[in-house]
Amino acid sequence: MTLTNEHQAEMAAQAQVHSATRRDTVEALEAMLYQPIMVLDHGFIRVIDYMGSDSAVVQAARVSYGRGTRKVNEDAGLINYLMRHRHTTPFEMCEIKFHVKLPIFVARQWIRHRTANVNEYSGRYSVMEHEFYLPEPAQLAVQSASNRQGRGQTLEADRAARVLGLLKSDAERAYAHYQEMLGEEGDEQGLARELARMNLTLNYYTQWYWKTDLHNLMHFLSLRADAHAQYEIRVYAEAMLNVLRAWAPLTHQAFMDYRMGAAQLSAKALAVVRAMIAGEAVSQEASGLSKREWSELMAVLQPAEA
Amino acid sequence: MTLTNEHQAEMAAQAQVHSATRRDTVEALEAMLYQPIMVLDHGFIRVIDYMGSDSAVVQAARVSYGRGTRKVNEDAGLINYLMRHRHTTPFEMCEIKFHVKLPIFVARQWIRHRTANVNEYSGRYSVMEHEFYLPEPAQLAVQSASNRQGRGQTLEADRAARVLGLLKSDAERAYAHYQEMLGEEGDEQGLARELARMNLTLNYYTQWYWKTDLHNLMHFLSLRADAHAQYEIRVYAEAMLNVLRAWAPLTHQAFMDYRMGAAQLSAKALAVVRAMIAGEAVSQEASGLSKREWSELMAVLQPAEA
Amino acid sequence: MTLTNEHQAEMAAQAQVHSATRRDTVEALEAMLYQPIMVLDHGFIRVIDYMGSDSAVVQAARVSYGRGTRKVNEDAGLINYLMRHRHTTPFEMCEIKFHVKLPIFVARQWIRHRTANVNEYSGRYSVMEHEFYLPEPAQLAVQSASNRQGRGQTLEADRAARVLGLLKSDAERAYAHYQEMLGEEGDEQGLARELARMNLTLNYYTQWYWKTDLHNLMHFLSLRADAHAQYEIRVYAEAMLNVLRAWAPLTHQAFMDYRMGAAQLSAKALAVVRAMIAGEAVSQEASGLSKREWSELMAVLQPAEA
Amino acid sequence: MTLTNEHQAEMAAQAQVHSATRRDTVEALEAMLYQPIMVLDHGFIRVIDYMGSDSAVVQAARVSYGRGTRKVNEDAGLINYLMRHRHTTPFEMCEIKFHVKLPIFVARQWIRHRTANVNEYSGRYSVMEHEFYLPEPAQLAVQSASNRQGRGQTLEADRAARVLGLLKSDAERAYAHYQEMLGEEGDEQGLARELARMNLTLNYYTQWYWKTDLHNLMHFLSLRADAHAQYEIRVYAEAMLNVLRAWAPLTHQAFMDYRMGAAQLSAKALAVVRAMIAGEAVSQEASGLSKREWSELMAVLQPAEA
Repeated sequence: MTLTNEHQAEMAAQAQVHSATRRDTVEALEAMLYQPIMVLDHGFIRVIDYMGSDSAVVQAARVSYGRGTRKVNEDAGLINYLMRHRHTTPFEMCEIKFHVKLPIFVARQWIRHRTANVNEYSGRYSVMEHEFYLPEPAQLAVQSASNRQGRGQTLEADRAARVLGLLKSDAERAYAHYQEMLGEEGDEQGLARELARMNLTLNYYTQWYWKTDLHNLMHFLSLRADAHAQYEIRVYAEAMLNVLRAWAPLTHQAFMDYRMGAAQLSAKALAVVRAMIAGEAVSQEASGLSKREWSELMAVLQPAEA
Repeated sequence: MTLTNEHQAEMAAQAQVHSATRRDTVEALEAMLYQPIMVLDHGFIRVIDYMGSDSAVVQAARVSYGRGTRKVNEDAGLINYLMRHRHTTPFEMCEIKFHVKLPIFVARQWIRHRTANVNEYSGRYSVMEHEFYLPEPAQLAVQSASNRQGRGQTLEADRAARVLGLLKSDAERAYAHYQEMLGEEGDEQGLARELARMNLTLNYYTQWYWKTDLHNLMHFLSLRADAHAQYEIRVYAEAMLNVLRAWAPLTHQAFMDYRMGAAQLSAKALAVVRAMIAGEAVSQEASGLSKREWSELMAVLQPAEA
Repeated sequence: MTLTNEHQAEMAAQAQVHSATRRDTVEALEAMLYQPIMVLDHGFIRVIDYMGSDSAVVQAARVSYGRGTRKVNEDAGLINYLMRHRHTTPFEMCEIKFHVKLPIFVARQWIRHRTANVNEYSGRYSVMEHEFYLPEPAQLAVQSASNRQGRGQTLEADRAARVLGLLKSDAERAYAHYQEMLGEEGDEQGLARELARMNLTLNYYTQWYWKTDLHNLMHFLSLRADAHAQYEIRVYAEAMLNVLRAWAPLTHQAFMDYRMGAAQLSAKALAVVRAMIAGEAVSQEASGLSKREWSELMAVLQPAEA
Repeated sequence: MTLTNEHQAEMAAQAQVHSATRRDTVEALEAMLYQPIMVLDHGFIRVIDYMGSDSAVVQAARVSYGRGTRKVNEDAGLINYLMRHRHTTPFEMCEIKFHVKLPIFVARQWIRHRTANVNEYSGRYSVMEHEFYLPEPAQLAVQSASNRQGRGQTLEADRAARVLGLLKSDAERAYAHYQEMLGEEGDEQGLARELARMNLTLNYYTQWYWKTDLHNLMHFLSLRADAHAQYEIRVYAEAMLNVLRAWAPLTHQAFMDYRMGAAQLSAKALAVVRAMIAGEAVSQEASGLSKREWSELMAVLQPAEA
């Protein structure tokens, strides 16, 4: 935990203030507000604010004068229906705002999700902090042989130690030179911050406020909590999945059933499935599926392991 | 006031529920929550939920660990600076959700603002209500001679009466036939709702949940609370301006100073202004401005009337 | 065909102009440019302009210095891969612009797709044309008993005739009164166009220029060419599917295989499929699926009819 | 110029292909297609494709069946009107696509413009190139004393040399270690590319395809070709301004008059201007303007220098 005492005091002070509100309120999420959930070695997410809940989804779907909710099982059924049929607009009626600290190379993937609001700490305006990401040895993996954008086995210990050493010493040197270029406070030949920052490496941490609606949050999670996502962004997405469960449990359950645990089967894959159910022989060659698609399909149809 | 007793009871029930929250809360807006503000003859806006406040703007601009606010005049100065330099992202950190009842022809203008979330009452799924907009006689104006998309003088009384008569009888007949096509409850030859609705006129009311962020709300207001906007949407925007003042008073003040009360002067217009300040003679012909631009500029430079 | 002679002459003149270009060009789409494809009784779509092709998708996916394309089967494989894994950004590199004439109630569904650019004919600025949609008798269907937002059987002939009579006479009367309110050219008591238009019924035609990228076009088509879409918008989507096939045949094929012909199976549905393949007994009650989900799943797993 | 011979050959080959088209075509832009315009030490922009022209703006504003254009001065008048009154949708009907090579720290500013389509070279999938940005000595400036996000005087020669030396040696070392971590082709202990890239510094070049519409291009240019923008992104914006002039000269002229050369005057600033024109004494203290606003206003009102 690398938050300064001052930061911790500020966050604790935020959490102390209680107000009365007539707004839709979620107790389980209130309990998480402002608290950092640590991710990677120095990163975190923390929920700063939210609007709405499962009830707001239901209320919007029914365009209601009142709260719109009925019995829990009717609300769950409606939410499942909306999720299944991709009626996305009621989910857009809820909003959540995070404060996130994350390595720059992760920020560069994250920012590609355009339907969100972002305020990032400015390296033009302020001095960047001296904090960078170093993977745990277990995360130092070789380039995957089969997947051009993935990882394979963990590095052997010697090689891992060498890599960590390089990452650490280059990041330290970059920061020392960053500081030298900026100069001491009051140095009249101190390089502009907007220039000096270019010397930092991509594993330096930045931070931002990030706000999005529930639909776009789930879209983000479906891509970034997925096994194909890079580990360093996936751990953020996994932390946010827990937030989602606290915030909107019915929506979370529907999301797990109809998105995260679901599979999209193509026209050709469906033909294979129908033949398998009919007990007919099937083969990759005859199916029209590529080898990769075939093996993906077989993985989906395999019984989950005990 | 045409809300049914049932609707009023539902809205009152919503307003009764109080919860404790650690979120940023605005007392003046809490007092308005759920209450309909009537607009036109049967329309309304009412605030259903909100996230953030002036403080959230400041907090995001400073990417703060705590509340981020300082003294009121420092916060006001920062908000003015952001508004003046069009640093829009901190304003995106606040969100508001309205329930709006409005004529369909107004909804068609409104929906052109794309950066918003919308759930509209569905005429495929439900029967449309029997409520349509009739202008007050003072609003029945002739086509403007000078502005192809505007109004001129009010109609003479006889003509106005004739127009109102036509609007009313056509809307009533359309609804009677809409009902006839749908048939009574249980009519096995009742036309599908998705088809029958095409017989309604564009002054029928619809309703929706509409949610947007503070930046996009101000963009909407700058266009729709403007004198060039059609009266029937402008009255909604004016009602929302009052909501903005209650919600985020520093932002509202900055918005009035730097947007609603401001003028954009082109390069040529600035040259005219500089010459006028220098006491030089200026003329439309020599200025390079069109006649229309010239008269717009002169209107801006005219002292406000006592 | 209700286009005036003047309109036809203008469209023909557009199609006559040939230029030399170094841009990516698609012959099959060039042949369709500017030609109206008639939809419903008076509507149409016509392609006004386009940017890119299958090659541009491939080029962007490879961030290439040149055209980026290789052999057709390699390009097809890449496009299939992108579609399957929802790598959507390369498809955003192509753009298409349509001129569309459509009933207002269809326009109100269409405009909900926000990631598009739109310029609509203005009823504030211009007089609306005297053209409205009347369904063919075969399209006049009763409200579905099982689906609250759908149609069932076709109306009986007498009832259909009555409905058509009402739709026609109300639309005619609305327009006659619209004209009366506007007054003759030069009438100094002519009602402002922005007001008079509210008397028109929702089946009146409007028109717009509509521009979107290939990814968002496919998103639109996946929702609007779907069997659940209202017939009156589906016919527009179907006409656009033909345009897509001419424009980007590899993308079109991938879209048909991986989207239009595909099915999303939930976690519970996959468990049922695995059990069926294993020859185990399955039942709706034990599956955790609702009755509706169960019947949707069974429909998907049923062999296509001969 | 650091493009490889292979890249140059590919770009030249692209430029050789000519096709016949019936689309709106702009000769001056055709001549620029595919050609790199060099920016900074190793960066470039080049136009890959475009859709529309000044004519398309006019055509969309008139929702025309034909080309929609009339006399040049009528078209210019319409375009000026649209620009002045912020009728932005007709400008959205034109689209342009660039291939851009730029330092990562510039890419991080650029990507904040969300209404655009982007495909970036992937450091997960491919090895990053060995090219980084080194400022020219004239661009190495001290931190501004008056503006927290700006530059002041140029560094003294010794200090500049020291800074350049640090930037160069750190970037070289980072790349050498990046390569070492990746290992030689076929190294079974080569670190995954998605990890190794984190060792690169923020001045390394990346590249992307970037596509946007004419309205959003101008929004980008109004912020990034502005004197407040960081030099390293401003030079890209300035190169794109030249492209805009070739592509849509009437729009470019209107943009220069009504945006780049214009000033937004607040309600209080307008009061000052009115008083100055009336020959009254004005002062910052009495005006209600802050010192900074006052000096900005005086700068705007100062006659341009001879």
